Amino acid sequence: MKKISVGVLGATGSVGQKFIQLLANHPFFEVTEIGASENSAGKIYGTHINWFLEGDVPEKIRKKEIKACEPGLDCRLVFSGLDARVAGGVETTFAEAGYIVVSNSRNHRYDRDVPLLVPEINPDHLELLNIQKYGKGKIITNPNCSTIGLALALKPLVDRFGLEVVNVVTLQALSGAGYPGLSGLSVLENVVPHIAGEEEKMEKEPLKILGKFNKDRIDPLQLTISAQCNRVPVIDGHTESVQINLKEKTSPEVLIEAWQNFTGKPQKLKLPSAPDQPIHYFNRPDYPQPRLHRMLDKGMSVSIGNLRSCPIFDYKFTILSHNTIRGAAGGAILCAELLRAEGWFD
Amino acid sequence: MKKISVGVLGATGSVGQKFIQLLANHPFFEVTEIGASENSAGKIYGTHINWFLEGDVPEKIRKKEIKACEPGLDCRLVFSGLDARVAGGVETTFAEAGYIVVSNSRNHRYDRDVPLLVPEINPDHLELLNIQKYGKGKIITNPNCSTIGLALALKPLVDRFGLEVVNVVTLQALSGAGYPGLSGLSVLENVVPHIAGEEEKMEKEPLKILGKFNKDRIDPLQLTISAQCNRVPVIDGHTESVQINLKEKTSPEVLIEAWQNFTGKPQKLKLPSAPDQPIHYFNRPDYPQPRLHRMLDKGMSVSIGNLRSCPIFDYKFTILSHNTIRGAAGGAILCAELLRAEGWFD
Amino acid sequence: MKKISVGVLGATGSVGQKFIQLLANHPFFEVTEIGASENSAGKIYGTHINWFLEGDVPEKIRKKEIKACEPGLDCRLVFSGLDARVAGGVETTFAEAGYIVVSNSRNHRYDRDVPLLVPEINPDHLELLNIQKYGKGKIITNPNCSTIGLALALKPLVDRFGLEVVNVVTLQALSGAGYPGLSGLSVLENVVPHIAGEEEKMEKEPLKILGKFNKDRIDPLQLTISAQCNRVPVIDGHTESVQINLKEKTSPEVLIEAWQNFTGKPQKLKLPSAPDQPIHYFNRPDYPQPRLHRMLDKGMSVSIGNLRSCPIFDYKFTILSHNTIRGAAGGAILCAELLRAEGWFD
Amino acid sequence: MKKISVGVLGATGSVGQKFIQLLANHPFFEVTEIGASENSAGKIYGTHINWFLEGDVPEKIRKKEIKACEPGLDCRLVFSGLDARVAGGVETTFAEAGYIVVSNSRNHRYDRDVPLLVPEINPDHLELLNIQKYGKGKIITNPNCSTIGLALALKPLVDRFGLEVVNVVTLQALSGAGYPGLSGLSVLENVVPHIAGEEEKMEKEPLKILGKFNKDRIDPLQLTISAQCNRVPVIDGHTESVQINLKEKTSPEVLIEAWQNFTGKPQKLKLPSAPDQPIHYFNRPDYPQPRLHRMLDKGMSVSIGNLRSCPIFDYKFTILSHNTIRGAAGGAILCAELLRAEGWFD
Repeated sequence: MKKISVGVLGATGSVGQKFIQLLANHPFFEVTEIGASENSAGKIYGTHINWFLEGDVPEKIRKKEIKACEPGLDCRLVFSGLDARVAGGVETTFAEAGYIVVSNSRNHRYDRDVPLLVPEINPDHLELLNIQKYGKGKIITNPNCSTIGLALALKPLVDRFGLEVVNVVTLQALSGAGYPGLSGLSVLENVVPHIAGEEEKMEKEPLKILGKFNKDRIDPLQLTISAQCNRVPVIDGHTESVQINLKEKTSPEVLIEAWQNFTGKPQKLKLPSAPDQPIHYFNRPDYPQPRLHRMLDKGMSVSIGNLRSCPIFDYKFTILSHNTIRGAAGGAILCAELLRAEGWFD
Repeated sequence: MKKISVGVLGATGSVGQKFIQLLANHPFFEVTEIGASENSAGKIYGTHINWFLEGDVPEKIRKKEIKACEPGLDCRLVFSGLDARVAGGVETTFAEAGYIVVSNSRNHRYDRDVPLLVPEINPDHLELLNIQKYGKGKIITNPNCSTIGLALALKPLVDRFGLEVVNVVTLQALSGAGYPGLSGLSVLENVVPHIAGEEEKMEKEPLKILGKFNKDRIDPLQLTISAQCNRVPVIDGHTESVQINLKEKTSPEVLIEAWQNFTGKPQKLKLPSAPDQPIHYFNRPDYPQPRLHRMLDKGMSVSIGNLRSCPIFDYKFTILSHNTIRGAAGGAILCAELLRAEGWFD
Repeated sequence: MKKISVGVLGATGSVGQKFIQLLANHPFFEVTEIGASENSAGKIYGTHINWFLEGDVPEKIRKKEIKACEPGLDCRLVFSGLDARVAGGVETTFAEAGYIVVSNSRNHRYDRDVPLLVPEINPDHLELLNIQKYGKGKIITNPNCSTIGLALALKPLVDRFGLEVVNVVTLQALSGAGYPGLSGLSVLENVVPHIAGEEEKMEKEPLKILGKFNKDRIDPLQLTISAQCNRVPVIDGHTESVQINLKEKTSPEVLIEAWQNFTGKPQKLKLPSAPDQPIHYFNRPDYPQPRLHRMLDKGMSVSIGNLRSCPIFDYKFTILSHNTIRGAAGGAILCAELLRAEGWFD
Repeated sequence: MKKISVGVLGATGSVGQKFIQLLANHPFFEVTEIGASENSAGKIYGTHINWFLEGDVPEKIRKKEIKACEPGLDCRLVFSGLDARVAGGVETTFAEAGYIVVSNSRNHRYDRDVPLLVPEINPDHLELLNIQKYGKGKIITNPNCSTIGLALALKPLVDRFGLEVVNVVTLQALSGAGYPGLSGLSVLENVVPHIAGEEEKMEKEPLKILGKFNKDRIDPLQLTISAQCNRVPVIDGHTESVQINLKEKTSPEVLIEAWQNFTGKPQKLKLPSAPDQPIHYFNRPDYPQPRLHRMLDKGMSVSIGNLRSCPIFDYKFTILSHNTIRGAAGGAILCAELLRAEGWFD
């Protein structure tokens, strides 16, 4: 079967590089175009870029010329890892020009007709595309890197017990800030107890993701979330200390079983980037840990551990997910795989 | 004035080394004895020890012989940095033999007649010593390293507004686990989301510290605390993401002012280890940070930042304190300074 | 074809865990026995062990009972990741009992009849096995983790130009010290400029590895090596700053080409653990770097960069190799694969 | 005695901040002016700057207005922590306008009439100032941060035994690259084996520093140096693995004694920033270490350890010095203290 041609916008940045890496041998998609800022346009990717991921620039991409991020790219789909300062307008332009845009940026996440998609959670939100204003072009967004692990962990609880309150404190990896992000002098042997705009995203995005499609809109879930976000000296993998109140009380065993048995459409469709098991529960109180477990199931599953009762809330526990795979490029690619399976490229 | 002779028990360990370092040129105390385990007894401190603090073993201590931790030491006061597996019995023996014991271990913290002392918070708890069962000998304890910063931050709030609920998630430094503590392979570029026994201490200790002396006992403060404890790759300095509910609602400005104006008996007495200002509030959301602020006021003050309202509780904010100075050796030395000022060595 | 049954001795340690991980789905070998110290014997591997590698204990191994390291194990080959304090005697006992022993410990490396094997460099040294004193049993050793990358980088130079002098300063990863190895408090944001016994190994081992098989012994290469060894806060991957004097002078281009074209018997035999290209040269002065390049070719190849002329020696350059894969477990497995290909298990 | 008014140029950068911090309570100098780039000029230092040093912006400096780096500043002396891209011209302009310039930048280091000053080594090089072309204004330079520790360690050997060859491999701290310098993503759990231009400086600067003043010029020392420079995840403190050949052979004991007894003019003059003992030798092979020993003698002394014989050179050993104190701001301040003591401000 012929692969779908794709472009990567913002290909020199942190998320862009991860897109390039993960798409290197993808069964559905072939990277035919790479786009970046005016400064980079016209240059050869392999020699121009400061590649900072493990391994090397994939062979096929190394000699490609970087193009400007403007319609005219020879591809059907664009993945956007653009900086939020420019992403909004560029993505709109591409959608209007008939491209399918899968974006990792925040700009369009709350557009009334744009799905904020986590394929295991809300594949039905894709119905918004039928009423989206861009004609043949479409915009689909991926949540913030710290939201996605939390939303996946909450999904089976919302479905089975109902959720009232979620309190979360994050210990986030450096790669979440992009490249170069924070100076080595700021992060080595240190904690930075603030990430601009992050708490707002974590308190708001899950409500849309976990919300219900209702004819022409998403009705957000009624839920109170409070987030505190910290940056720690870890390369990849966001750890989250979480507390919850359930509507219907249940035992730890039933709760763990709800997580372990959770599965979604990507698993049923056997999408290439889908984790075999979206949520892993560990029976050791000191697990999960970013360096040990972030790559579980190709970096696409969420790890949970240390479920215990709480003097204030019903339960407390630890979540871990890979912020640049599940939380960014990998999550966006899974969205595109779902789009293809649902016939949006036909 | 003649200095009071002191011994350091557990002098080869992490807290013991910090005692040795901080007492090197102390105006009140002179280290005359150093005690450690049977294995170390008889050896010369400077050549035997694996000193891992900045700088070097203080000149005067280098050639001292290590003794066993048994009464017979030539000193009036012993600071105990002993491992909790042995501290309880050893400390009791020393108290029964007439020594004043200031302990950093957890064993006697909940003894009905033993003060759990933070000199700025509960100096009146020293009245328990009048009824303590050891005669001339006494036992005074210092709280756990993660408790002390929290308790200091809460004290002015308890006094002025009343506290109902405290929720805390910690990002704790490696030195809190002693030496060698965690393997470099476990902590580099990683988070360990569990510290055995730590959450229990944080949920319980503040209640006694903030409690009221009542004739022959401490009536604990009525307060619900929930703690989640994480270890992060930081050498010194515990960061805490805190949320609170107050009994009497107030504005952020009034709250900050309560912190900044807070002062206690050690400040009035101008004790040598007392910080000038016990609590510093920073007007930058990304402050305090362990590497920048842990040494504020000789490592004895608590730093707070990023006070903001919370969707679940009244407020959220960040606390930082130095875990081996304010949270261990320095805190214990301040206790001993208070004892001296109150005439317990006369 | 039936797999060869193997045991892993020292299976709870750092190298032992890496053996277990790398052998999980090996085409030639099946782990049937796991041995460790008396303390661990009788316990179940998956629940007893403090697994600190990425991912989890392989499924098949999780429920295996740990045995004592004594003959009687049901396997044909044992990989030894034992501590050098006990390895010598245990390995001799196993060889005398008829097992083929592939050891990562230093004890037998200089035995006159024991090959110190790097399959790309000296596969002919296996002829020593014909005269080895253990009968059906055999002992084959793998070099020290800091030696192997250096020896591979030197091999094509020895062959084509001749080598006179080698000067090397290492920046070694924590995992080279085993688990727990150095305390997090000793290594975070620090350098430890000494590794006991390491410099001696680096100055001596390459001479035997690069030596010539001569009837019944190895004639060591005549070569002067000086090593200085440092420990740095890196998990895996030894970096080495190297200087050399060649016998026959040559240009950088010819030297680089000698590295890039180097290939050996494992490549010809297409052994499963053999890297496609044993030596990679990078054209960026700031490459190779441990986090980016240690996993090149499954962690089995050596990376070189920044070749430049030197005011003292002919050339200076940087080497990187993965110390627990190429430098320990992976290297030993490659040795065993060569043994099988050469018919030693027939 | 009235303090000398000084300006700090490049006050927002890494070295500039260190100047501000170290000059906060200096007995000779008072910071009256702070200069930075056009972008910062006109802003208030305390609110504008991203202060990343321990503690806080000194009280007196906090409210100062940042000025452009142009003559007209109200001070007698300027310390320059300017970026090398602009330092050359700016420093010349200030000298021509009659200011004494003490520079940490590389631009004027090799000017024939400019001293490259290390006060313990070559105070007589100040005689160049008598023939310098700037009239009342003067330019004095400080060596590169990786050079200064090496030069100090070599000085007593040059004087007593004569030096033929020096080979050095560095493990340099992040702060040497300024702020922001390297991304946290590039340096955490990693080594970067290249620092642009650094090796050239290390191979050349010591020759001038250790050279002889000869009427109107410095005759460089005849000495061959080879340097390889690596960046490691350490905040402050450059470690160097060094090898030397002496002209006159000597024993380790005599060599160590030469280091320990070394003293210079700053010690005789009791200059405020002078270390009591410029060179400390440690009798432990694993010392010195950056985190333990960089702050020895206020960060102004050089630590040496692990002297041992070498198969290639006469000796090998480890050096450590604080790169932003002794190797930058502190070293420059010591230069200025010497200038004052020698009457250049009279």
